[in-house]
Amino acid sequence: MNDEHYMQLALNLSRSVSGQTSPNPPVGAVVVKDSEIEGIGAHLKAGHPHAEVHALQMAGDKARGATIYVTLEPCSHHGRTPPCADLIIEKGVTRVVIAVKDPNEKVAGRGIKKIEAAGVDVELGVLQQEAAEVNKYFFHYTRTKTPYVTMKSAVSLDGKTATYTGDSKWVTGEASRRDVHQYRHTHDAILVGVNTILADNPSLTARIPAGGKNPLRIILDSNLRTPLNANVVNDQQATTWILTEQNITEEQTALFKNKSGVSVIPLNSLEPGNVLTYLGDQKVLSLFVEGGAAVNGSFLGSGKINQLVQYMAPKLIGGREAPSSIAGNGFKRMTETLQLDILKTEMIGGDFKIVAEPRKDDSNVYGDY
Amino acid sequence: MNDEHYMQLALNLSRSVSGQTSPNPPVGAVVVKDSEIEGIGAHLKAGHPHAEVHALQMAGDKARGATIYVTLEPCSHHGRTPPCADLIIEKGVTRVVIAVKDPNEKVAGRGIKKIEAAGVDVELGVLQQEAAEVNKYFFHYTRTKTPYVTMKSAVSLDGKTATYTGDSKWVTGEASRRDVHQYRHTHDAILVGVNTILADNPSLTARIPAGGKNPLRIILDSNLRTPLNANVVNDQQATTWILTEQNITEEQTALFKNKSGVSVIPLNSLEPGNVLTYLGDQKVLSLFVEGGAAVNGSFLGSGKINQLVQYMAPKLIGGREAPSSIAGNGFKRMTETLQLDILKTEMIGGDFKIVAEPRKDDSNVYGDY
Repeated sequence: MNDEHYMQLALNLSRSVSGQTSPNPPVGAVVVKDSEIEGIGAHLKAGHPHAEVHALQMAGDKARGATIYVTLEPCSHHGRTPPCADLIIEKGVTRVVIAVKDPNEKVAGRGIKKIEAAGVDVELGVLQQEAAEVNKYFFHYTRTKTPYVTMKSAVSLDGKTATYTGDSKWVTGEASRRDVHQYRHTHDAILVGVNTILADNPSLTARIPAGGKNPLRIILDSNLRTPLNANVVNDQQATTWILTEQNITEEQTALFKNKSGVSVIPLNSLEPGNVLTYLGDQKVLSLFVEGGAAVNGSFLGSGKINQLVQYMAPKLIGGREAPSSIAGNGFKRMTETLQLDILKTEMIGGDFKIVAEPRKDDSNVYGDY
Repeated sequence: MNDEHYMQLALNLSRSVSGQTSPNPPVGAVVVKDSEIEGIGAHLKAGHPHAEVHALQMAGDKARGATIYVTLEPCSHHGRTPPCADLIIEKGVTRVVIAVKDPNEKVAGRGIKKIEAAGVDVELGVLQQEAAEVNKYFFHYTRTKTPYVTMKSAVSLDGKTATYTGDSKWVTGEASRRDVHQYRHTHDAILVGVNTILADNPSLTARIPAGGKNPLRIILDSNLRTPLNANVVNDQQATTWILTEQNITEEQTALFKNKSGVSVIPLNSLEPGNVLTYLGDQKVLSLFVEGGAAVNGSFLGSGKINQLVQYMAPKLIGGREAPSSIAGNGFKRMTETLQLDILKTEMIGGDFKIVAEPRKDDSNVYGDY
């Protein structure tokens, strides 16, 4: 058993709570003494105790002389809970192993300094890349103050989302469609264009076996064409924000006044950069863009995609007029196209799933996109 | 060392000559006595000795009492060479292990019967699926009398072959483009539409490091628009057949008369079924379809695709008007689309390669597509 072994356990704990901690990051902690695990913890929800608090509480007196493994640098400031750095020192922990530094300006190395100043050994960087991956929404938001954007597409092998007649049910299989709900659960918000509402009347909820946390539902709808009887307006399964442009009248907006959990919000522009700035101000850390093609084209054109999750069904649809996943103009020259790195490929049911990110500098775990 | 071990070696020999034996199948053979390999052989070229002949010749007297492993049932008829079944019996081989039966009506179990009748042990079906895969062009042709069709496409992750302005150089990387040449080498013929000739003026040769066998080049060109100065008309690197419809005048055809290795061939129709029947009559066993999109659409619509080889570059191009790999109408309903099974996925350079086949009944190694 080495540091990587215990940190892997802490990372698994942090992954298990991904999606339920926003606007805080998912963090895991493990307390080890004499090669025995004495405490495990995870941060469950914003406002609840941090991972270190749970793990140290479980360890009790065994914390004295123990090592604590934490996936993210312990906090040093009084937030909604007292600083974890202080608690670690107070409990007599003698070694702190940290996967990655917290880029949050309120922490950013101060937690480490405080602990070291108390004479406790600190080791930083164990499974750093993995920890950065688990925290990527949080790191992106901390750095940019705008949400991390995951774009989803579901296509045939020849890149089509429907036949030329518009038949789109279903391109991918049931297992892929279930997998999508996992992403809805782990993102703060989901975004679609009004055409998707008009065409499919989706509920955009996270329907996963254990329940699932429904994301905030965001509709890009410049002319407020969302029907009053749409599921997202009436089902009260999650909050719905209909983002419009400034040309909407008070009469139009008033129609949605008595719809519980629904807000009509006029912005100066529905250009992705502007939408993301607004959502960042509202503490939306991560956004799952589910299209349709025009919305995807707009996000691609704006350079605001942080991750692509693509499901490919093993079928050929064909057709010059059959729609693809990304419309708009697209890039003009091949040299301008968005280069990606494929992070993961896997079979899901009979389908093929690809997760990719815009190519970036490997040396910076916080990303530079 | 068991039967699978030696058959695997024989299969590797057969794979190594794939592409150079047409219209014969690629076959490998291994002679083993007292756990030592005494002879190895492969069928190198039509008209040359069969794999068994080479392997038994190498074994010499050691063949007496030995086991021979052959990837395909030994022949029982006098073709351009004497029957291998007779030679096996004559050399005193006491056990014959065969991967798969030869579906050729001149063999089809008769080789096995002849050997068994001579009191030699025969075991059939060792690594049968693998052998069927190696022989799939041959099996398909034997069954249908038309070539096995591999369709190639090279697309971005969002299924585009070019930007909306037509910029297509390059979608995929150099490693993928090199890999394509391996397929040109292993197919008897390559097929493109005249638009590809007009747009790219390709040479359509197999440029692989060790040389490569250039495939017969087939241009679908209903109105004989192939330019007299096209590479495929002038470079004499391989035979070129320009398939036209019946509306072509003798004056038009005469322009190509003095072009060495070039034939203008009018057919009643350039519909894929008709083209494949014609090519089958000319002993073309395998056809590599390299598009463009209209030709691909026509092959998809006709149900004449036996294999898809798709290279996907990790980039997004986007654009409603940016072309996809398969044009035409495509299928009307999702339930009518061509269902595939993914056989293989691999990374080639930074690109992603998928090999898929139309879904078929697994129980039939000869295919039923």
